[in-house]
Amino acid sequence: MKTIEKKINEANNLCVNRIMESYPVLVDIDQALEVIPKMESNMLIHGGYPQLKWEEMIGPMKGAVIGAMVYEGWASSEEEALKRIKRGDVLFSSTANHGAAAPMAGIISPSMPAYIIKNKTYGNFAFSNVNEGLGKTLRFGAYDKGVIDRLHWIEKVLMPALKMILKKYGEIDIKELIMAALRRGDECHNRNKTVSLMFLNSIASKLVRSDIDRNNVADIIDFIGGNVHFFLNLSMASSKASLDAARGIEYSTVVTALTTNGVNFGMKVSGLGDQWFTAPSILARGKYFEGFDESCAAPVFGDSYYSEPAGLGGFAMAAAPAIVSFIGGEPDLGIKTTKEMYEITTTEHKYYKIANLGYRGTPLGIDIRKVLRTGILPIINTGIAHKNPGVGQVGAGILRLPLELFEKAQGAFGRKYQIKF
Amino acid sequence: MKTIEKKINEANNLCVNRIMESYPVLVDIDQALEVIPKMESNMLIHGGYPQLKWEEMIGPMKGAVIGAMVYEGWASSEEEALKRIKRGDVLFSSTANHGAAAPMAGIISPSMPAYIIKNKTYGNFAFSNVNEGLGKTLRFGAYDKGVIDRLHWIEKVLMPALKMILKKYGEIDIKELIMAALRRGDECHNRNKTVSLMFLNSIASKLVRSDIDRNNVADIIDFIGGNVHFFLNLSMASSKASLDAARGIEYSTVVTALTTNGVNFGMKVSGLGDQWFTAPSILARGKYFEGFDESCAAPVFGDSYYSEPAGLGGFAMAAAPAIVSFIGGEPDLGIKTTKEMYEITTTEHKYYKIANLGYRGTPLGIDIRKVLRTGILPIINTGIAHKNPGVGQVGAGILRLPLELFEKAQGAFGRKYQIKF
Repeated sequence: MKTIEKKINEANNLCVNRIMESYPVLVDIDQALEVIPKMESNMLIHGGYPQLKWEEMIGPMKGAVIGAMVYEGWASSEEEALKRIKRGDVLFSSTANHGAAAPMAGIISPSMPAYIIKNKTYGNFAFSNVNEGLGKTLRFGAYDKGVIDRLHWIEKVLMPALKMILKKYGEIDIKELIMAALRRGDECHNRNKTVSLMFLNSIASKLVRSDIDRNNVADIIDFIGGNVHFFLNLSMASSKASLDAARGIEYSTVVTALTTNGVNFGMKVSGLGDQWFTAPSILARGKYFEGFDESCAAPVFGDSYYSEPAGLGGFAMAAAPAIVSFIGGEPDLGIKTTKEMYEITTTEHKYYKIANLGYRGTPLGIDIRKVLRTGILPIINTGIAHKNPGVGQVGAGILRLPLELFEKAQGAFGRKYQIKF
Repeated sequence: MKTIEKKINEANNLCVNRIMESYPVLVDIDQALEVIPKMESNMLIHGGYPQLKWEEMIGPMKGAVIGAMVYEGWASSEEEALKRIKRGDVLFSSTANHGAAAPMAGIISPSMPAYIIKNKTYGNFAFSNVNEGLGKTLRFGAYDKGVIDRLHWIEKVLMPALKMILKKYGEIDIKELIMAALRRGDECHNRNKTVSLMFLNSIASKLVRSDIDRNNVADIIDFIGGNVHFFLNLSMASSKASLDAARGIEYSTVVTALTTNGVNFGMKVSGLGDQWFTAPSILARGKYFEGFDESCAAPVFGDSYYSEPAGLGGFAMAAAPAIVSFIGGEPDLGIKTTKEMYEITTTEHKYYKIANLGYRGTPLGIDIRKVLRTGILPIINTGIAHKNPGVGQVGAGILRLPLELFEKAQGAFGRKYQIKF
């Protein structure tokens, strides 16, 4: 008879293999109502888990909700939006219920374009919205006219163009872009500078050769080429699609979902099926934009936290040493962080390689046992939002996940499998 | 009275300061006959120093000469070209006589487009041709129809487009692109992957907004976006423009020019004015493309060697760890090389920073004294050409400069300044 330790190790190997062998590609984009499962015409999806009531939401998420209502034409002002919310006109749900992953507030409304990421190896899908750029954006809780106009442009101009390219030329290989980006200074969570240009380069001449209006083509090139985070949403949905393929492996102690709604973190473990473990959301330590400091920061939120359990972001930071200019910290923070994360992970990624570390694979598969045994808490790279609605991004930084998540998960694991750690 | 050592150190500091404070920008592009000083209508310029007679040239340079003659319409076949060369119809010169820097064979003919790089700080200029891509190219000695057609396309389609952009929108900041590229995995000599995309991103939407034919715009985007070495020629001319500003500083032992014509290396030292020191060209150690090996390699040649004395290329290799996939070698080759080069240089670059080394500046200013004192010979990254005309690039690698260059230079320095080392 196998010892429990052996069973867990085997299950974890199986789990990380499924994550690594996943092959995410972008296959289509269309309005959320058309493509996101169980989306409804009066629904607003927010990032994180669990699903929140309006009253529970943090400031920037409230701002994003108001903005999405204005964008959808459900309200023309904050007052009207609040009235409609009170009346119960808006159905709230969370990305976790819809196979989606969206950054920060993570608001997806029915008309918003949604990417369809397919995991070619295992056939499952994940969804995300389109990244709006830095600064004043809906996902950080801003909703002025500029923000709403940009969302309409994304829907009316960018989405049809991308859809046409995908239809005419076929899927775009996201896994390959991520592998290449790791050799070019990105970690694909908080640094997507080069990979966004690479994505643009894969479609730019195709747009020019199409019959899309020239000014629109130029605007699209400017938008993607000028948005250093354009690729983020593709990356995180790819991470989610990869992690989803590794769910429900009995005895596995590997983390397969990680997100935060700004109030609580939510985490899942492969061997514990669809059970979520939660702990209060916290502030990130980071670098603030000119004129802002920690006193105005909201707790962290969003689904981009799927990056780290998939071997990207903070875990791949050694590949992106220049990220410290964005998030702050000592120059060797990246290498130190990646090296530390090897202590709490199951394996080294077979395809995501870090040239800076002699082509070592990124640390992959957060093992809750190792986190608790070593006391090393996973490090996540993140953006920082203003705590009030309507302001937007004020910085970027890192954080360590709360111990509570892992204690709760290990407790549940012990009860389910009748073992003591 | 100052000791000689102190005089040399002061001169070297002045010298590297002039290199670092140089600010290269791309200001224009036009046909070589229009822009390159002392260019003549029957002249072919080749890379390296000294100037070679036809009989002295290595195979791939001969191939490039034949190709350039076909491109100019001076000959329609190899035979005809050889006949015209014998008859003395072609005037040969070297880039070193014209303020130019061009890769490998470095052939520039009168009709070829030439970039004008301006050193904004000191007002001097340097010139280069347009990079053709990898594989079968004129600079590596290939001259089949595809090569000639591409050269015509560069002249007829790409050049007018770039010229128009530069005229309408003004100069392109090459220094800034290089600084950013060092944070994104390029060393800007043998790895220009990201910086070429960044250059493209700086002009793509402008091309789309112009009245240039849409298909031509798409072709230009495909050409630059598909050429991982597109930026090389801009980088090397910028290095030359920076080094030229540091020439002729009395008592300086810093290298201010480095090139090879395939037969000999040529090197200049700031305190020794316009005197060149030569030593035979050698083979690079490297990684060969499928189907080739060292037995078919030509000795190294070209002006891209201006990169290293300017703090790029092999000296900045720690910034480009993934380059080993192209040139071969141990995974930590980049970091080892950069660290070693600090031993023989005068300072650390104030603006070219390596995030991988905690934002340390790249090693700058090869001091011939330090090379001879330590026995550490400068490492150069390079492409490798087939030794026969007509074939093209067969690999990429590194080499160490011959000791002879430094011995000769130090000898001359000793004689000029009446000192013994």
